[in-house]
Amino acid sequence: MGWTAVTLTNWVECFPYGVYTINGQPGEPRICARVGDTVLDLADAAKRRGSAHQTTLSQPNLNALLSAGPDAWREVHHEVAQWASDAPRIAVSGVTLHLPFEVADYVDFYANEQHATNLGRILRPGQEPLQPNWRHQPVGYHGRAGTVVVSGTPVVRPAGHSKRGDDVVFAPTERLDVEVEVGFVVGTPSRHGVPVPIAAFADHVFGLVLVNDWSARDIQRWETVPLGPFLGKSFQTSISPWVVPLDALQAARLPVPSSNGALSAYLVEPQPWGLDIDLELRVNDELLSRPPFRSMHWSPAQLMAHLSVNGASLRTGDLYASGTVSGSGAEEVGSLIELWRAERFLADGDEVVISASAPAGDGLRVDLGEVRGVVVPAG
Amino acid sequence: MGWTAVTLTNWVECFPYGVYTINGQPGEPRICARVGDTVLDLADAAKRRGSAHQTTLSQPNLNALLSAGPDAWREVHHEVAQWASDAPRIAVSGVTLHLPFEVADYVDFYANEQHATNLGRILRPGQEPLQPNWRHQPVGYHGRAGTVVVSGTPVVRPAGHSKRGDDVVFAPTERLDVEVEVGFVVGTPSRHGVPVPIAAFADHVFGLVLVNDWSARDIQRWETVPLGPFLGKSFQTSISPWVVPLDALQAARLPVPSSNGALSAYLVEPQPWGLDIDLELRVNDELLSRPPFRSMHWSPAQLMAHLSVNGASLRTGDLYASGTVSGSGAEEVGSLIELWRAERFLADGDEVVISASAPAGDGLRVDLGEVRGVVVPAG
Repeated sequence: MGWTAVTLTNWVECFPYGVYTINGQPGEPRICARVGDTVLDLADAAKRRGSAHQTTLSQPNLNALLSAGPDAWREVHHEVAQWASDAPRIAVSGVTLHLPFEVADYVDFYANEQHATNLGRILRPGQEPLQPNWRHQPVGYHGRAGTVVVSGTPVVRPAGHSKRGDDVVFAPTERLDVEVEVGFVVGTPSRHGVPVPIAAFADHVFGLVLVNDWSARDIQRWETVPLGPFLGKSFQTSISPWVVPLDALQAARLPVPSSNGALSAYLVEPQPWGLDIDLELRVNDELLSRPPFRSMHWSPAQLMAHLSVNGASLRTGDLYASGTVSGSGAEEVGSLIELWRAERFLADGDEVVISASAPAGDGLRVDLGEVRGVVVPAG
Repeated sequence: MGWTAVTLTNWVECFPYGVYTINGQPGEPRICARVGDTVLDLADAAKRRGSAHQTTLSQPNLNALLSAGPDAWREVHHEVAQWASDAPRIAVSGVTLHLPFEVADYVDFYANEQHATNLGRILRPGQEPLQPNWRHQPVGYHGRAGTVVVSGTPVVRPAGHSKRGDDVVFAPTERLDVEVEVGFVVGTPSRHGVPVPIAAFADHVFGLVLVNDWSARDIQRWETVPLGPFLGKSFQTSISPWVVPLDALQAARLPVPSSNGALSAYLVEPQPWGLDIDLELRVNDELLSRPPFRSMHWSPAQLMAHLSVNGASLRTGDLYASGTVSGSGAEEVGSLIELWRAERFLADGDEVVISASAPAGDGLRVDLGEVRGVVVPAG
């Protein structure tokens, strides 16, 4: 497919956080950081070194660390960077990674102009593809937090009603798709009734994960008017096991296209939070697409400000995803319906992998991990 | 308004469950049952009587009881009925009631034909008010679990974008509305990837609460195409403090209208779970409407079956609401937009109360409590 081979990437460690158990040793998961091809047990290291954050790091998930706030996040990062050089570590191949945090509310946005335009053209041919609201504010909806799962969890082909010709049938989906997205993880909660200002983004949002928002296009299409996507999405959403702290993305920041237009004050960024992330979508090891996150119309800071502008509170563990990332090129789209114009979808046994990286300054890059899943037949 | 005065109602105790603190004594909430105008502390009673469910009842919320399953629910109910006659109790006026359970996922359905028709006519005049999918399956969407609050919590008038004339403005909503609903509370969780059969309804769903799904109609209208309601709803959803076990509704069960049509197998009820609940909507003590829950097209068992038919798991604490309840009479509607044809909405200072009761057999009735809230100005 003519991709340029990347042979000389120099990677920077960003010490993302996860939750693991040792293979063959069931028990409560433990917090770890990733260091190269190893994991560093943070409860152990914190205890040995007498860290002030020992209790926060001795939990079965990241929620206590998420809620500890930005000062604690920076302190722990500095400690981990020290511990990484000399504490004992475990090979990644010897551990199982779990869902890294308890998801509070899950929101999915629709913040990419190319994707919204492509979908509008496919689903409503001949009509204006973007709705009138789209440039005024980020458009989004709530998804199902309870079916957010960690990378590696198989996805069972869902059944539901859909229109086939003139008939409404109940059957396993024939149009199982993926959506390549980036998700943002809330750490510090906010007060109900009080909007969170856009300038407070990095005080509230801890970091990011990669998201595959699996979609059953036939079920979605039948159910979606007037209340939006429901069962066509809620069967499963997969996220990467490593939560990358925002601080690791400082060199990747850039302005978003929406900053060129007139915006309501609550959406005006004092500092840009667009992110120059390169995503990759593979099905059965074939590289299908390289969606560029820099093409997002709305930044994650704008999404957070919008989410709470009506007074809705943020909670620790809230996850909000960007919406499908698509560039203008044919091989930059973030869903199969866009790539194959609704002519081909996932088959049972297909394995989907989304991975990503970003610039880290000085020609170096940071690895943002991957989210993976295999399709299994309807039960 | 010509309501018949009900003077001789004989009430049956159903011992609903809640969570309280004593006024002026802050501290961790405790589980209680309501007995007339008093509350019975269940941790205390369980300890004194050596109940097998002592640990379950000594939690700060109902989640452990919810997850304990139908056998435990029945055993605890029998114990409470015994304890109610002789254990010490506290006047309701002396306690503060809290959110009774941690809400996992919140779903809002649209299961009432009259309401869906009324809204379709108001929002899309001249078009077919019901979508083609409406009679095939319950239509619903996910709401924000983090802003579900207990009765008595004031609602702050939310701000957002809406269309006023030809302009898009950002301002506090001018169309703050209520939706009178009944919500169902999941106890027993289910396995991800496996639909829950409709016959297992009472094994999974513990009971019900009353719901006021506050709605900002102008914000909702502007944002809602194509992904459905979002900020127009997510600022707050209020529920009654008492969770009424399903067992208390046995005498209120009746078939729903959908059972007269051809349905996919997963929606066919082996036993009817429609409910003959009478709701009342009051604003500033004026009785505005009496929405009849018996008019719901889909039963709570059908809603549960639909929710999980794609393999989405149920979790303890999931809350799913019926959608607005409206009857065919002018004084039976469950929202102000229907009552006043979008000419009048809530003012700051207005207090909204939704209450309900149901038949309990032998001419007796069961009180399903109330959900209350005052509108406060935008911050």
